[in-house]
Amino acid sequence: MSPKITVELLRQLRQAMRNGKYITEPIQAYIVPSGDAHQSEYIAPCDCRREFICGFNGSAGTAIVTEQHAALWTDGRYFLQASQQMDNNWTLMKTGLKETPSQEDWLVSVLPENSKVGVDPWIIAADQWKNMAKALSSAGHSLVALQDNLIDAIWEDRPSRPSTKLITLGLKYTGLTWQDKILAVRGKMAERKISWFVVTALDEIAWLFNLRGSDIEYNPVFFAYAVIGMSSIKLFVDVKRLLEPAVREHLQLDGTSKPELTVQCFPYESVYTELQAVCAALTPKEKIWICDKASCALTQVIPKVHRSAIPYTPFCLAKAVKNPTEIQGMKMAHIKDAVALCELFAWLEKEIPKGTVTEISVADKAEELRSQQKEFVGLSFPTISSVGPNGAIIHYSPLPETNRTLSLNELYLIDSGAQYLDGTTDVTRTVHFGNPSEYEKECFTYVLKGHIAVSAAVFPNGTKGHLLDSFARAALWESGLDYLHGTGHGVGCFLNVHEGPCGISYKTFADEPLEAGMIVSDEPGYYEDGSFGIRLENVVLVIPIKTKYNYRNRGSLTFEPLTLVPIQLKLINTDLLTQKERDWVNDYHTKCRETIGAELKRQGRMEALDWLMRETQPFV
Amino acid sequence: MSPKITVELLRQLRQAMRNGKYITEPIQAYIVPSGDAHQSEYIAPCDCRREFICGFNGSAGTAIVTEQHAALWTDGRYFLQASQQMDNNWTLMKTGLKETPSQEDWLVSVLPENSKVGVDPWIIAADQWKNMAKALSSAGHSLVALQDNLIDAIWEDRPSRPSTKLITLGLKYTGLTWQDKILAVRGKMAERKISWFVVTALDEIAWLFNLRGSDIEYNPVFFAYAVIGMSSIKLFVDVKRLLEPAVREHLQLDGTSKPELTVQCFPYESVYTELQAVCAALTPKEKIWICDKASCALTQVIPKVHRSAIPYTPFCLAKAVKNPTEIQGMKMAHIKDAVALCELFAWLEKEIPKGTVTEISVADKAEELRSQQKEFVGLSFPTISSVGPNGAIIHYSPLPETNRTLSLNELYLIDSGAQYLDGTTDVTRTVHFGNPSEYEKECFTYVLKGHIAVSAAVFPNGTKGHLLDSFARAALWESGLDYLHGTGHGVGCFLNVHEGPCGISYKTFADEPLEAGMIVSDEPGYYEDGSFGIRLENVVLVIPIKTKYNYRNRGSLTFEPLTLVPIQLKLINTDLLTQKERDWVNDYHTKCRETIGAELKRQGRMEALDWLMRETQPFV
Repeated sequence: MSPKITVELLRQLRQAMRNGKYITEPIQAYIVPSGDAHQSEYIAPCDCRREFICGFNGSAGTAIVTEQHAALWTDGRYFLQASQQMDNNWTLMKTGLKETPSQEDWLVSVLPENSKVGVDPWIIAADQWKNMAKALSSAGHSLVALQDNLIDAIWEDRPSRPSTKLITLGLKYTGLTWQDKILAVRGKMAERKISWFVVTALDEIAWLFNLRGSDIEYNPVFFAYAVIGMSSIKLFVDVKRLLEPAVREHLQLDGTSKPELTVQCFPYESVYTELQAVCAALTPKEKIWICDKASCALTQVIPKVHRSAIPYTPFCLAKAVKNPTEIQGMKMAHIKDAVALCELFAWLEKEIPKGTVTEISVADKAEELRSQQKEFVGLSFPTISSVGPNGAIIHYSPLPETNRTLSLNELYLIDSGAQYLDGTTDVTRTVHFGNPSEYEKECFTYVLKGHIAVSAAVFPNGTKGHLLDSFARAALWESGLDYLHGTGHGVGCFLNVHEGPCGISYKTFADEPLEAGMIVSDEPGYYEDGSFGIRLENVVLVIPIKTKYNYRNRGSLTFEPLTLVPIQLKLINTDLLTQKERDWVNDYHTKCRETIGAELKRQGRMEALDWLMRETQPFV
Repeated sequence: MSPKITVELLRQLRQAMRNGKYITEPIQAYIVPSGDAHQSEYIAPCDCRREFICGFNGSAGTAIVTEQHAALWTDGRYFLQASQQMDNNWTLMKTGLKETPSQEDWLVSVLPENSKVGVDPWIIAADQWKNMAKALSSAGHSLVALQDNLIDAIWEDRPSRPSTKLITLGLKYTGLTWQDKILAVRGKMAERKISWFVVTALDEIAWLFNLRGSDIEYNPVFFAYAVIGMSSIKLFVDVKRLLEPAVREHLQLDGTSKPELTVQCFPYESVYTELQAVCAALTPKEKIWICDKASCALTQVIPKVHRSAIPYTPFCLAKAVKNPTEIQGMKMAHIKDAVALCELFAWLEKEIPKGTVTEISVADKAEELRSQQKEFVGLSFPTISSVGPNGAIIHYSPLPETNRTLSLNELYLIDSGAQYLDGTTDVTRTVHFGNPSEYEKECFTYVLKGHIAVSAAVFPNGTKGHLLDSFARAALWESGLDYLHGTGHGVGCFLNVHEGPCGISYKTFADEPLEAGMIVSDEPGYYEDGSFGIRLENVVLVIPIKTKYNYRNRGSLTFEPLTLVPIQLKLINTDLLTQKERDWVNDYHTKCRETIGAELKRQGRMEALDWLMRETQPFV
């Protein structure tokens, strides 16, 4: 991986920062956040502005350029990757380390007095704007919203915004019509005396309307806004997309529905002026819901007295708690996904000794095998396929220049997943095709212990995911080890592979309590820069569990693994496991054998079935 | 416990809420917070305003009175106690339960339009004021600072503010002179370009000046403020207290020190006007540190441009990390305390069969035995001495009308501690003098497993205490049990038994990372209303530990128990313990035997020594 050369780009950006064409007064710093106007985690090529300016292409990070400095903040998943992708015009700021200044503190330390700091108000979230503006103003500086995006100004061949074909999803997949979802949210709005609800997150809009697109790679979403009133529904989207008869029928655009369930369609860009019109017509007491993670630009359209900013929307929570149809779909998707992975591992065992299998070829093979499964749509994120030291780059994707060959001597980590019409998958396995060292086995076993500690945890209703994070780390901590990423994220149902508002992380973000029906990942790891990476990830479903007692009638929850792919036994040092942990592994493998074995048989994939039977032998 | 009759008081308060003598316009609600002008947790009788109005005397809780309603918010430690102490004019709001509205939400739901809500700005913290004011104003109401406290206005025989004799502490106890503490904080102020630092927390002022008082029962503090500049030190205190020669000498009040280390003394009440004068003399760029938990009244003296509000002060952190002298003192205090408790338990075993020992008489006996130890000053909090169902009242203190007799049939819980010149103690043991039921043993053993899980936890430097909280609950959770309080709090050194900024709790308050030298409690429990309470509490010191590996050179920490009092073996169901947990108990008891045994021998307390030897037999 060679770094992007940014001397000339930085020169141009700094020129733009002083150019009267874009600004009324020169600015002394420019902030380039990671997201798009919907604060998406994964973004379309036209929105990869931060990557364009610094070269770092991970999913999280903020670049700030001043007259003298250029710095990028990212978290532990990306330290190595960012340091390799950026040239020495850039300083890497390692978020989460004690010595790393916050963006605000750093700006205050480097800016001359009374500086102006610019940012595009569409791609900074309202809550981030607020914090940054406050910190800057208390140090005598100011944060300025610039109409023109300065990166776009210097980006010559910037791609255009995608507008892909929309897919309609029926009740078979969604369990609930979009009309019922509208009625449910109106009930919540009435309860809270809310007149309007501005929906900006792309996955919430896709979920609401039971529509999918492919505007953003890996994320089956489409660029749109929605503004829901008690008796109207406004959808902002490239109107060409609505010409398709199936979409018209699905949204009942041709005049058959009741007025309050009629979707009014507007061009995507008109959300700003339409929202202004909605606000202008409000009576003094009326309130509008908008997520505090929505863009600063759209948020500020709503006068403060009418604005009710919420940390996450009712759709965010409703989407997180899967209904029975969605749960069934997620289970089916994971069975198909496991079939593909069993085939992949069986194939790898045969092929690796030939010395021709590379990180890239495995990733391609995995995609090919998945694509043979029914209702396959595409991958859910770029496959992380990494050999030996590449495994320590937590979100590594192989490139021709970094591509390593799989061998009998190094650990191999594959973190991959797919979108099926019935669900989204995300699974990581770390394997060794020769003889792992005692140290590799020891580390793997600690990670396994952490994985089991979360997966088998029993906890009361109302518990937030961050309270489970340390369970995943205890075994590593005891030996002085750790990993610098969270333990789990919410997973969408044929939607984004990362979704809120629940998760399992040491970071105390505003996570909502875990509830039966939520689906999260459980993925502890251990990484040694320059040597190897280990991660073990299942997607798990939150389910109720009957406990011996039931304190204050609260009820208890635990997890059911949806991912059913064997965990490599040869990497486990069984002496380090308790009897309970051994039982867990055996039970898990029995379930893999029964469920995935039956499906492999049904599909006639006998080689993979043999592999599965071999890999799921119980411990003696 | 019979509830306080509040009909007449509420009538008077509501009258005051409309009385032009105190207010310019009638207010529709009045908030009565728990604290004093220093936001102390324990308060002097003159500040017990919330207890005066509603009868509930726990350490945490806020009362709000409207024209129609009266409600009290408190947390899980106090649900039972509050419900018993308040009459039916009051609604108990159980903080932490999902269905309980926040104070803000509740006010918004009950207030008529455009209401005014009053509060005394001296006893509401600045951050609480801010949140409350914001929530009210966004609902069309307003929060109003009232010059007169309305409770004081209707409180006929309100006690006067205490002004007790000051004790000076030498280097032998403090390890650091107050002058060195001043110089250290000025270093930090210079680093952050801070001109002044307003100290409002009573324990911080006591710690800074190496002085103690007894203005507040159990807390060796005195009413004062301090304002520290880069070249001046202003102390606000009842000036009569400074006439004592020892105090004058200690503070070098008689003109021998350098000007920048000369303490200027002012009357306690003049802090408001003196701080105004300090602010008036500031140059435009100068900043003043004040904790965001300081009173709203004092905070607002500092113009916003000069105010640098911090979540905790440098003294708060410096005080939390004990120096070697303080650690040694805490160890000595805990040895003395354990001697007294061993004697108490030996005495109880003999006396209980006589049927004359009550909750109150044990509490008295414990105090008597502690008072025989060197450097004893007083108790560190009201002794919780509770038999059977009283044990379920988490912060229960026996009263003549609730007093139960200890028997061979019920669990007995004692949570007690003392102030010694060299340290502060806090210890809870739950014991049974007859034959505990299998169920009691089971619950006790889960609590013990939780206690050990925290005490033996190994975790990286930089870990916040809240990440350890679930370790204390995992065994209870697995059986569907839990407890509704945090697991641990910081403990002062001959200072407040509860102190920040570290702790172990599921509540994600702004806790600072644990550091070697910090001292916290480890006190999981289990409570069944109407039946029994179990709690097991040691005070533990954070210490470095060498682990097998050392990821990123971060280093690891664990805990060393300072409390060395046997854990009753007959309450343990050893089948439920792992081998590691059994070893922990045996090692702990060996340490008790060695350290406390030696001291008991030295003090010639042979009966207690026999008891200790019997109670610390290793598991077979």
